[in-house]
Amino acid sequence: MSKEVSEEGQTQHGKDYVDPPPAPLLDFAELKLWSFYRALIAEFVATLLFLYVTIATVIGHKVRYAADQCDGVGILGIAWAFGGMIFILVYCTAGISGGHINPAVTFGLFLARKVSLFRAVAYMVAQCLGAICGVGLVKAFMKHHYNTWGGGANSVMHGYSKGSALGAEIIGTFVLVYTVFAATDPKRSARDSHVPVLAPLPIGFAVFMVHLGTIPITGTGINPARSFGAAVIYNNDKWIFWVGPFVGALAAAAYHQYILRAAAIKALGSFRSNPTN
Amino acid sequence: MSKEVSEEGQTQHGKDYVDPPPAPLLDFAELKLWSFYRALIAEFVATLLFLYVTIATVIGHKVRYAADQCDGVGILGIAWAFGGMIFILVYCTAGISGGHINPAVTFGLFLARKVSLFRAVAYMVAQCLGAICGVGLVKAFMKHHYNTWGGGANSVMHGYSKGSALGAEIIGTFVLVYTVFAATDPKRSARDSHVPVLAPLPIGFAVFMVHLGTIPITGTGINPARSFGAAVIYNNDKWIFWVGPFVGALAAAAYHQYILRAAAIKALGSFRSNPTN
Amino acid sequence: MSKEVSEEGQTQHGKDYVDPPPAPLLDFAELKLWSFYRALIAEFVATLLFLYVTIATVIGHKVRYAADQCDGVGILGIAWAFGGMIFILVYCTAGISGGHINPAVTFGLFLARKVSLFRAVAYMVAQCLGAICGVGLVKAFMKHHYNTWGGGANSVMHGYSKGSALGAEIIGTFVLVYTVFAATDPKRSARDSHVPVLAPLPIGFAVFMVHLGTIPITGTGINPARSFGAAVIYNNDKWIFWVGPFVGALAAAAYHQYILRAAAIKALGSFRSNPTN
Amino acid sequence: MSKEVSEEGQTQHGKDYVDPPPAPLLDFAELKLWSFYRALIAEFVATLLFLYVTIATVIGHKVRYAADQCDGVGILGIAWAFGGMIFILVYCTAGISGGHINPAVTFGLFLARKVSLFRAVAYMVAQCLGAICGVGLVKAFMKHHYNTWGGGANSVMHGYSKGSALGAEIIGTFVLVYTVFAATDPKRSARDSHVPVLAPLPIGFAVFMVHLGTIPITGTGINPARSFGAAVIYNNDKWIFWVGPFVGALAAAAYHQYILRAAAIKALGSFRSNPTN
Repeated sequence: MSKEVSEEGQTQHGKDYVDPPPAPLLDFAELKLWSFYRALIAEFVATLLFLYVTIATVIGHKVRYAADQCDGVGILGIAWAFGGMIFILVYCTAGISGGHINPAVTFGLFLARKVSLFRAVAYMVAQCLGAICGVGLVKAFMKHHYNTWGGGANSVMHGYSKGSALGAEIIGTFVLVYTVFAATDPKRSARDSHVPVLAPLPIGFAVFMVHLGTIPITGTGINPARSFGAAVIYNNDKWIFWVGPFVGALAAAAYHQYILRAAAIKALGSFRSNPTN
Repeated sequence: MSKEVSEEGQTQHGKDYVDPPPAPLLDFAELKLWSFYRALIAEFVATLLFLYVTIATVIGHKVRYAADQCDGVGILGIAWAFGGMIFILVYCTAGISGGHINPAVTFGLFLARKVSLFRAVAYMVAQCLGAICGVGLVKAFMKHHYNTWGGGANSVMHGYSKGSALGAEIIGTFVLVYTVFAATDPKRSARDSHVPVLAPLPIGFAVFMVHLGTIPITGTGINPARSFGAAVIYNNDKWIFWVGPFVGALAAAAYHQYILRAAAIKALGSFRSNPTN
Repeated sequence: MSKEVSEEGQTQHGKDYVDPPPAPLLDFAELKLWSFYRALIAEFVATLLFLYVTIATVIGHKVRYAADQCDGVGILGIAWAFGGMIFILVYCTAGISGGHINPAVTFGLFLARKVSLFRAVAYMVAQCLGAICGVGLVKAFMKHHYNTWGGGANSVMHGYSKGSALGAEIIGTFVLVYTVFAATDPKRSARDSHVPVLAPLPIGFAVFMVHLGTIPITGTGINPARSFGAAVIYNNDKWIFWVGPFVGALAAAAYHQYILRAAAIKALGSFRSNPTN
Repeated sequence: MSKEVSEEGQTQHGKDYVDPPPAPLLDFAELKLWSFYRALIAEFVATLLFLYVTIATVIGHKVRYAADQCDGVGILGIAWAFGGMIFILVYCTAGISGGHINPAVTFGLFLARKVSLFRAVAYMVAQCLGAICGVGLVKAFMKHHYNTWGGGANSVMHGYSKGSALGAEIIGTFVLVYTVFAATDPKRSARDSHVPVLAPLPIGFAVFMVHLGTIPITGTGINPARSFGAAVIYNNDKWIFWVGPFVGALAAAAYHQYILRAAAIKALGSFRSNPTN
């Protein structure tokens, strides 16, 4: 906490970090790399495992809860399943694919020019296919229960307007994508030792807490692949769970790039003579 | 554990860390820096997200709990929402603003001369405005439920005196601010590798456990911006939730500066010939 | 996240990590080392403590739950007991025995040639003996309750087929063993600072989340020693809890070695001229 | 996992760590150091805060649970309060006093000659006084509730024999003290980067899981200061909560020193010609 003062001093003597150049919009070279296809496989498998474990937890909770209201892992357990899986899957895949596991995260990183358009689109396709397969496995294992208990699909809960649901999805995704940007900022990684070391943990916790707050409103999407996979298998779709997360990711990307990383300062121009931050 | 013995030896050969000079009381220079305003924005946004997610969790829990006593995230889930959000928000904003998100933390760091008076006052204003906006969003999304279920405002619970409530707020804030001082102590960071790397995690856990113990007494303030934001939107205010946290922060600052960092030794003077700690 | 681009550049200038040579299938030399027997003792003690704490938690929960449905630690608490114990036991024994505590993990690491056949078999024996002793202690302390409440043994839950149970065990073990491979990959450890530092934590969390999703299906094995120990003491055995975890470990080993570490690329041959990854 | 093979190679070329010399039994020099008294104050304050937050959580839970069986933080929340407080207090005090906060931990470290007899006895006195003050604060804030709900005192639960309770205390303390030894082993810290960085976290988790398993048996002591402080204020004492933890600490110290650190090998003598571990 409160490192601002010394920070000013340091940065006047030159940067101690390197911002990688923006990813090209269309990068044909990466199509020839095995690592590109390996990353797609990793995103597919990670999203499959994410949806399998989380939707199995949701359905398993509802089955036991229906039999006895105090049994089941509870909403708290469901929130842990989502947040904890993101923690371990980001941990496991960060070095292979960047560990997105969520089209909104991919979209936010694409807007910040951290992945190419090709890669962004290919990731989203892999994520959606993985999500469908993961939910399909839950249906295969729990067929009767799966259909009875709503298939883990997202929807606007009784008593909330579509506007509230959209707003909750936008803010929830903002929390997640903002945490992702903070965790992957090369400037901060160079300065604060906790940033790169803990990275997957706060990303997982962001998902956890957003679920605690948003399950009563929409069941919590903040991940279009998660909502889409459940919707495809359960036969139900909602535009809110694509628009909300993408708007939230856009807002987080803009907040990080134009406020916190102060790209704004260049636009404002005359505000300060030596803009070091 | 038990590093005291070797510590004595090391520190006799000179310090391996640098205590930054105390922040000036009035620092006009920082008013010209973009990083100062960026820090205010970061405190505003972080406190907004903190209040939005936590108060949404509280109201969402109460709605479901009223319908069915075994549904809802439970008090345990509410405590996780508060502690977990502080974890991720300190993680995300530590490098931008120091990650206070709490006027009592700002007050404690001001007392220890780690932030200037200007910065402290500006942070508190930003935190209170952010808290009001965050609670306002919850009210906008959950209007009917919000008013029915008490708006997440703090109050002294039935069966407890005002003195007990004040005492619980003081000790709870002491736990939090003491953890913040331990996490940001340059002496300890230089020596114990776990200190800077984990820093945001124990700060979040301190908030989590204080909520476990204090929710039955006051609902847990320990953060005047959190209490104030909820009170403004719900139309209710209590002096306890300003006085308690500020006294707790004062006690923690004094404990850290005069006991643990042994500024006391200089006052005592003749206790030991070469006071190295 | 998204380190792929720079990764390509780095690896063209030579590796910054060393893959240890594959463990010999039969290594007579290690039979003469005290560290080999010490590792067996550590696996025995760790598995004993793992089964003791977790099965005591399961039985304790069922006793209190039967008296009052809202008492007991809940399924969430049981899942924490399993995941949390794996976290601390991997933390404590990683430097002594590698911290397997699970025959399926040992099997996966044997398939990847990270332990010799001797060591793998000896570990599995030590783990199974430790598990029996751990469950035996629970029975000794809670004799009446232990028999009444099912002894913590795994079985296919009512409403699920044997095929679903086997599938759930395979995927659950895949999640665990995949996380173990990701955490111990020397290539990733060299590049991502979070990988070696956090390692025991995501392994523990993997166990935690798999329990959240799989308790309603099989009670969650994913560890043949855990299932075997409980079965021996409670007098009941199931082939599913050996076959499932071993197939899952095989799949995770193959996924890590042939896809993510791209041993496949050598088989494919002509796909790319300079296969650096 | 599985670092045994390369470990053998490394240690043949000399140690990469230094075992500090055993602490003298009677060290008069440390009585003249301010850091000795500071450590006592830190143990006193930490144990005070530990007991205050945890016992307030226990009483607060019982009050709400009595009014409504699904309210309150649950046994899971109580276990988190104990484990989480140990996590943050070890984090905060490790560099000041070693972060014992538990006479059984101090006893174990004394047996391993990591603290002097003076220091061990002084710590235990400070811990017991701190515990009494912490519980006293809970009684002051919750007077009526405190007496009604058992004062957070430990006792052998209905249906368990004294022998089972003693055994559960021994094994529970073994888990905790074994984790403390693993976390502070200079040999492992030099080799495994996760050991020193995470240290306070697995120690806290050990306390958490032992509570999950042992609350139904004894309410969980494993810390004589915790049991003593509650007993003094609530007027009730049990020898089990001193004998059990001290025997467990003795067993963990012996296991770590004679098996894992292989002091045994020197006694066995001829087992191997070049005993490097």
